[in-house]
Amino acid sequence: MRLPGRAMIFGTGLMGASIGMALRERGWQVGGVDTADGVAARAVELGALNDEGIDHRADLVVVATPVHAAPQIIAGIMGSTDWKPGVVVTDVGSVKGPLVSAIDHPSFVGGHPMAGSEQVGVEGASGDLFVGATWVLTPTEVTDPAAYALLRSVLADLGANVVALDPARHDALVAVVSHVPHLTAATLMDLAAGMGQEHAALLQLAAGGFRDMTRIAAGQPSIWPDICDDNAEAIVSTLDLLIDALGAMRRRVAERDHESLLEILGRAASARRTLSERAPQPEELVEVRIPVPDRTGAIAEVTVLAAELGINIVDLEIAHSVEGDRGVLVLVVDTLSAPTLLATLSDRGYRASSTPVGTSG
Amino acid sequence: MRLPGRAMIFGTGLMGASIGMALRERGWQVGGVDTADGVAARAVELGALNDEGIDHRADLVVVATPVHAAPQIIAGIMGSTDWKPGVVVTDVGSVKGPLVSAIDHPSFVGGHPMAGSEQVGVEGASGDLFVGATWVLTPTEVTDPAAYALLRSVLADLGANVVALDPARHDALVAVVSHVPHLTAATLMDLAAGMGQEHAALLQLAAGGFRDMTRIAAGQPSIWPDICDDNAEAIVSTLDLLIDALGAMRRRVAERDHESLLEILGRAASARRTLSERAPQPEELVEVRIPVPDRTGAIAEVTVLAAELGINIVDLEIAHSVEGDRGVLVLVVDTLSAPTLLATLSDRGYRASSTPVGTSG
Repeated sequence: MRLPGRAMIFGTGLMGASIGMALRERGWQVGGVDTADGVAARAVELGALNDEGIDHRADLVVVATPVHAAPQIIAGIMGSTDWKPGVVVTDVGSVKGPLVSAIDHPSFVGGHPMAGSEQVGVEGASGDLFVGATWVLTPTEVTDPAAYALLRSVLADLGANVVALDPARHDALVAVVSHVPHLTAATLMDLAAGMGQEHAALLQLAAGGFRDMTRIAAGQPSIWPDICDDNAEAIVSTLDLLIDALGAMRRRVAERDHESLLEILGRAASARRTLSERAPQPEELVEVRIPVPDRTGAIAEVTVLAAELGINIVDLEIAHSVEGDRGVLVLVVDTLSAPTLLATLSDRGYRASSTPVGTSG
Repeated sequence: MRLPGRAMIFGTGLMGASIGMALRERGWQVGGVDTADGVAARAVELGALNDEGIDHRADLVVVATPVHAAPQIIAGIMGSTDWKPGVVVTDVGSVKGPLVSAIDHPSFVGGHPMAGSEQVGVEGASGDLFVGATWVLTPTEVTDPAAYALLRSVLADLGANVVALDPARHDALVAVVSHVPHLTAATLMDLAAGMGQEHAALLQLAAGGFRDMTRIAAGQPSIWPDICDDNAEAIVSTLDLLIDALGAMRRRVAERDHESLLEILGRAASARRTLSERAPQPEELVEVRIPVPDRTGAIAEVTVLAAELGINIVDLEIAHSVEGDRGVLVLVVDTLSAPTLLATLSDRGYRASSTPVGTSG
């Protein structure tokens, strides 16, 4: 298909309306609906949608409703002949495993834009929300490579850093970097607030560090029961790890174990400083060409592998080899990452080759 | 004494040099020393000190050395006749109980400026560091009211919000809003970094909320063994509360207890939002006059009481009543807080009265 095309958005709150704005700024025709009265009309007013209503001619459908409403909408589209054949469908939920295994369709690719905002609802929407944000996609072995490549290129065009992950792996990782941190921030805030009722002075002492740590606890509580249900296993096991680690911290303090205290605080400090550094911007890029003749799930396997190796895919396309019937997956990565990627692909039985960008035939 | 006067700073790192700059900007003559080679000389170059060296004529001494070095320096000043009689001494340590009970002198008032900076050392010093920051003082029943009033007015002049607390209470409260949050941030960061070694993708998912929560973990590890030793009891008991509360959170997630999950997240969200609101700026101020004829420790009792009631003391001075030999403590507070303060003071046996600011004789 030719891009930009037509997009349809279910749920035009903060996330859906922001996607609408970003797509429209890039020339897409965007339709949308929302179950809450007046929200889709407001999205039209704010420029997030061209029109309110369901557009069955859409090339891309984004389901940005509350998590519990998404499976039925997506299954409805996949099971209907009203929609354009091959329409690519994605969602924006924070937990991917249960949804992705329930849908299991070549044209559905689960998504999770890791962009937040202090704002809530359609009024807080912004077309810039995704610039520089990580946007996880969860292709599986049934995913149509063309659907994945389309969605990936649209999201990269919105400014997002697209990372492919296995759905279960995504859920385990976000438990660590998002769900448990949120629950911990809320727990700390509640502990302090409880003491603050007796000691008004306490909240006067809440300085920058405490404010930083508890900022996310100010977020909308209503989304959390769904997230906690869908990702219960990973959240519970991460909470167990955190509780154990805090118990070890308690022991270090109680036993005046300076050596071990300095070790963990030093390790955490250097890890945190690394997190602040921007990834090095490679001067040179390389095209890695990977023939994928008859391997189902090759696009999922290759893109997930790159993410697990920490390799950023700058560009991705599906080309066709001279033989005509064989696909070639073309990834653009930086020069330094290419040898690792090639070696790992070779271990997995792929016959990949690389050429500097600009010189390939 | 007439202000500004002469100040002497022991330890001219980030905190000491920032205090030096702020005092010099207000006309003080500031001397200082540092045990690290060249640091005091650099503080002179940066304008934080007039001169390097010990100034025995100082009216105010600030001990801003690492915590373990402070008791000996302060005890040395208190036990020496080299210094100006009545010199007021304070410190900037994060734990107050052990130090304040070890010194126990009328002219020593423990202090804890709750101002931080991403910067480290003398190079990061700034005269604006304390504007709007909470600065805890810990007067006790032996504290000389004149020493307290002098120090309080100097710190308020630097832009700090001065809060008086009992030393042990201070330590219990900072365990909740500072020490345990720091240890928790480091624990979360270390947990994520450990998983990140296996899964390079994890750190790509570390979005804004995680970055906010772990920012303080990037701080200097070396100060923490002293803090943890000095405040071990409060830190251990707060860690116990946190571990229990996280266990309760784990139970809510495992048992899909939506009601209880929404309750705690909602309570935390509204507490966090309250924290973001600025304290209301009262239109009108009231002078509360408290005769303190023969009560040792009245200044500590009254100022700590105000802080426990969450009442901000806008100004404080020691006046003398017409009888000549009786002190009168004059607090300026906002109109809305005055009745609570008066009633509580009355319960404690004080005969306080109030008049709108500007009309008192």
